Amino acid sequence: MQFDFESIPEEARYKLMLATVLPRPIAWVTSQDGNGLVNAAPFSFFNVFGSDPATVGLGVGRSSTVRPKDTRLNIRATEEFVVNLVPFSAAEKMRNTSMPFPPGISEVDVVGLSTLPSLRVKPPRIAESPVSFECRFMQEIRLGNFSLMLGRIVLMHIADEAVSDPDRLHIDTTRLDLIGRMEGTLYTRTLDKFEPQNLEQARALLAQHNT
Amino acid sequence: MQFDFESIPEEARYKLMLATVLPRPIAWVTSQDGNGLVNAAPFSFFNVFGSDPATVGLGVGRSSTVRPKDTRLNIRATEEFVVNLVPFSAAEKMRNTSMPFPPGISEVDVVGLSTLPSLRVKPPRIAESPVSFECRFMQEIRLGNFSLMLGRIVLMHIADEAVSDPDRLHIDTTRLDLIGRMEGTLYTRTLDKFEPQNLEQARALLAQHNT
Repeated sequence: MQFDFESIPEEARYKLMLATVLPRPIAWVTSQDGNGLVNAAPFSFFNVFGSDPATVGLGVGRSSTVRPKDTRLNIRATEEFVVNLVPFSAAEKMRNTSMPFPPGISEVDVVGLSTLPSLRVKPPRIAESPVSFECRFMQEIRLGNFSLMLGRIVLMHIADEAVSDPDRLHIDTTRLDLIGRMEGTLYTRTLDKFEPQNLEQARALLAQHNT
Repeated sequence: MQFDFESIPEEARYKLMLATVLPRPIAWVTSQDGNGLVNAAPFSFFNVFGSDPATVGLGVGRSSTVRPKDTRLNIRATEEFVVNLVPFSAAEKMRNTSMPFPPGISEVDVVGLSTLPSLRVKPPRIAESPVSFECRFMQEIRLGNFSLMLGRIVLMHIADEAVSDPDRLHIDTTRLDLIGRMEGTLYTRTLDKFEPQNLEQARALLAQHNT
């Protein structure tokens, strides 16, 4: 079956993309407005894109809902934000911060989140998150009804118990127990890990073609 | 534990980002060089970022390995590419296309992929993928050792059996059985879905604060 993205409505494109580009990592972003009010909101149009500079990208709606606009405005105003990752244990709180609270209300207070001070930026990080990246705003790329906000990671926090070998930077992702965004109101856990089995075959193919 | 991203080496940043920004969706990108040779390679610095235009973004290495450079050069040369999503059943083939084959070799032939013609762009789509997006190049944003390649989706293919209600655009993601990228050489399946439970509480909080 085909869908012609040049003729179907925007809502249909959005729905189809949300239901098929899976699983998406979740950036639970904390930011602050000019008065210091802390905003928290989850975004799944999110990923990292490079390591030098260490770059995160967030697709943020510019008009459709209240809070994504708050996050974008805060990032533009203060040029700082924190990307917190979401463990299974914080799924309900994260989901609650996605509700469209009006500006002037802090999701942190209403939902009962705990925060901890950041070291390099003003917005606090979320205590319930096992990984947080303190970020500085780099660039906004306007894409019609969305903006792609790019930021540079300046500092990373990670829960001690998830670092299985600090010298080798080995992370125990089972302890992180992060969740991904699926379709509708669904999420997925990430404990069902596997390794594709025939890497030996791939290496043999490679050796054959590189000689 | 903290890692100061402004002082640790690039390799350490890369390793830490790969092991914590999880789960990442996988774009299995087909592209063609000027001679029509088809290249296939997986990228997990990938997501969608907006719906109008329907925008995909790929973080592609510019120097570190052979093939990501091929994909970037092909996209620049022909301004067309296809993002194919990866089901569990194609995990081994996908993984094999991530090996650094030299330029001039088509991963499609070596790995034994099947392709089908695209309708709006020249690069073919991968028959093993239940979802493919035909894309046109929009913009390259240079980020040091990586480039963020933005493309606009012009046409979407989806396997008939994964569309449970075509009128309402309902997709059966269990039938898609897509995989996500985890740390090291690991991947995760996405069948362990759940819905956070206390949305009622969130709605009550919201009603209270909106009155």
